[in-house]
This record gives sequence, C-alpha cells and structure tokens, in this order.
Amino acid sequence: MIRLDDLENGYFIYQDTDFFCFGIDAVLLAHFGKLKNGDRILDLCTGNGIVPLLMQADARDAGLSVSFDALEIQPPMAALASASVRKNHLEDTIRITEGDLRESASIYGPGTFSVVTCNPPYMRASQGLHGETDARTVARHEVLCTLEDVICQSAKLLKSRGRFIMVHRPGRLAEIFACLNAHRLEPKRMQLVYPYVDKAPTMVLIEAVKGGGPQLNVEAPLIVYNADRTYTDEVLRIYGKKD
Amino acid sequence: MIRLDDLENGYFIYQDTDFFCFGIDAVLLAHFGKLKNGDRILDLCTGNGIVPLLMQADARDAGLSVSFDALEIQPPMAALASASVRKNHLEDTIRITEGDLRESASIYGPGTFSVVTCNPPYMRASQGLHGETDARTVARHEVLCTLEDVICQSAKLLKSRGRFIMVHRPGRLAEIFACLNAHRLEPKRMQLVYPYVDKAPTMVLIEAVKGGGPQLNVEAPLIVYNADRTYTDEVLRIYGKKD
Repeated sequence: MIRLDDLENGYFIYQDTDFFCFGIDAVLLAHFGKLKNGDRILDLCTGNGIVPLLMQADARDAGLSVSFDALEIQPPMAALASASVRKNHLEDTIRITEGDLRESASIYGPGTFSVVTCNPPYMRASQGLHGETDARTVARHEVLCTLEDVICQSAKLLKSRGRFIMVHRPGRLAEIFACLNAHRLEPKRMQLVYPYVDKAPTMVLIEAVKGGGPQLNVEAPLIVYNADRTYTDEVLRIYGKKD
Repeated sequence: MIRLDDLENGYFIYQDTDFFCFGIDAVLLAHFGKLKNGDRILDLCTGNGIVPLLMQADARDAGLSVSFDALEIQPPMAALASASVRKNHLEDTIRITEGDLRESASIYGPGTFSVVTCNPPYMRASQGLHGETDARTVARHEVLCTLEDVICQSAKLLKSRGRFIMVHRPGRLAEIFACLNAHRLEPKRMQLVYPYVDKAPTMVLIEAVKGGGPQLNVEAPLIVYNADRTYTDEVLRIYGKKD
C-alpha cells in the first residue's frame, strides 16, 4: 500500500508499506552527514529517497545551498522517490535517477561529487537467501550490489577530499575498513549506535575522506533507548522532537 | 622511587614511580583477554609485568593452567618485572625476557603461542618528540617499536587460530584494521572504552584471530565513570571491588 507520510520537517514522503519503509538507519545517516554550502551530494541505494529529503531539510534550515543526485536500481522505488521530490517541489534540488550502482561512475562521471552517502543492503547475499530478488530482499541483501561495489564506485565518484558517509552493521567493520583502505578513502569519523547503554551496537556510522590523512575521530556513543524503552534525548533531538 | 603495591588479587607488583606505573589500560586489557586451559601466552611491551600478573590471577581463580612469557626491552623495567615474579613465587608460570620486540619471532620461534597480548606505546614517534629515549617516552611513543612491528611480530608468533589481544587509541583504529588485515589477523571482538557515556572513547580493546573468518563482534560500550565521577559498577567489577 502506498502511503504519504509527513516527515514533520516541511516535507512529505511516499512509501510503499509492502516494499520498504525507511528506518532509524536513514535518519541517523542523514544527521551524521554534515553538509557545507555548495556541496554536491550523491545518495546511492536511495530507495524511496529518504536520505536526500532529510538532508535537504537540514540544509534548508541551516541556510545552505546544496544539490542532490540519488540513484536507485528498483523502478518502483525510483518512481516513488521521484513522486516525493515533485510533491515537495524539490525538482531543482534533488534529481532521482533509475540505474545500477555498479555503473554509477559512468552515469555521473568520475570526481563529480563532494559527498556520497549510502545506506546499503547490510547482509551478504549468502546470508539466508535462496535466489530471491524481490524489492525487500534487494534492499537488505547484497544481491545487486556489494559493499565492495559501493566503496569502489564512491571512491571514483568523489572529488579529492570528498566525503563518503555510510551506515552499516558493526559486524562488517573489519571488511569496511579494509575496503576503504584499498580504495584510498581514509576513515575520519565513526560513531557506534547502541540500542541500550549495556548492549552491543547495531549500527555504525562512518565518514571517510578521499585522500585524507590518518587519525580517526571516534565519537561519543549514540544510545537509542533509555532503560524504560523510551527514546533518549539525543535521538529525540535528531528526530526534531526536542530542542 | 621503587614501591611494592598490593594488587589485591593475591599478588604484589614492584613499580618505579619515576618511570611508569600501570594504568587502567592494562587492567582492561587483562580483563578483555579470555583465557582457556593450556593457553601459552606472550605479553609484548610488558613493562613491569602487570598484564601477565593480572591474567594469571584470573586464570588461577578460574582453575585454568596457563603459562606466560613476557618481553620487555628496557633493562630496569624487565628487572622489576622479574622481581615481581619472584616475589609472587610465579617463576614456573611467568617467564620475563629482556629483549627487542622486533626480534621476538626469532627469540621465541614462530607459531609458539596461542595468545599474544600487548599494551603498546600509543603515540607515533613524531608526536611531540625531540629524540628522547627515556623510559617514560619509550613506554608511550613508538620510539623502539611501531604498531606495524607489534602486529607483524604477533602474526608470526601465533599459531593458527591463535588470538592477538591489544589495547590502543581509537584514533588509530583505521591503521590497526589495515595492519591486522595485511598480516591475516582477523578482528573478531572489539570494545570501545568511553570515559563518560556522552564522551568520545579514549581506548579500544581488540581481539583478532590468526586466519579467522570475517564477522566482528563489537561489544557493549565500556563506560568508565558515572556522571558524578565515581567508577561505574562494571569498572568496579573489573577491579574486583564489586561482585
């Protein structure tokens, strides 16, 4: 079922509840990415376009002028993302393209962007799959693009000193670091997202700089829930529910 | 000044307060390293031998039979470590060797240990140094051994499936991951140590397995202090001050 949701930041988003609705991952990724005036951003694996919509709202509030491209391989998802862009009158700011991430460097040209963001599928294609290629599977499993594809293409698409910003699973951190290293993207900021203060993290946010020098800034932990299962103040602030 | 400190675990340690006294890093490293019966452990950069003393106390309490070698390049530190071993009547369990880490694979022979632990100097030799080689500098800066030396030698010293366990600064995580990867030590467990729940981490504990498969288990955050600057219950438990 297609639903129009109010993002409560001045924008709306179309979501198909049978396919995939955005989660806290996308919200945290958009908040983790710090934009500068004039940034040209590409969002890979954009799905219904949630990341550029959230980042554009932040940029607008901060008085920044930025522009977004966003790539999605699944036609119905790309169509929904385009519909949301039109609904919000953002055609001049966010351009949705239907296409294959593995060809993105040739779609957009190398060295085109100052920022690449990505909320990729987290799971290896082998993890509990039996050849499914439905929208939900494609969004969650590396059926149509792998971590290596994402990082390799991002390294090509970024200009020198450009920032690559991704959310992923902590279980794959070793692979992420090795792959970033192989493609000369130097990790500069990292934040682990813990559901509770005494639980293992479920997400990692990472920013790497093309051709950056060594020294990684690991940030304070991001804790999602208080012990009583309410959102922490920090998460409420990220969701714009608290000053 | 040389002081005899009670570790309050049944053992004592000699420390030269003019050189270097052990800190929370060594305590957290020793606690992070989980031993198995029959383990043969090598502690590199052992300093005054604090890590094997703490690990041996835990092994004794758990009824495990293990043995330790420990290497220290600075003669006065190695002498203090040996004195502590004798004081605790642990000559059959902990053997201190004075020698250069960069030659450790030839000192002990390759594939000798099931566990290598290390609390190495954290800072690059270039960081704020002007040719000093005093004991304090050697313990803190990579004057006599680098991260690359530690990891390269550990990879040689470990047997297949052996565990490399280290404490270091989060700022060097990207370098640590790249170096582990280059030497086929697969990161399997990691824990970030945050001084306060809302502050950036100051230490990272990491365990890598020689020839291990991918998938990193990032553990719950280790928070050192409560907001009122008292130790958290978890740290009190590690120090044996709370059940």
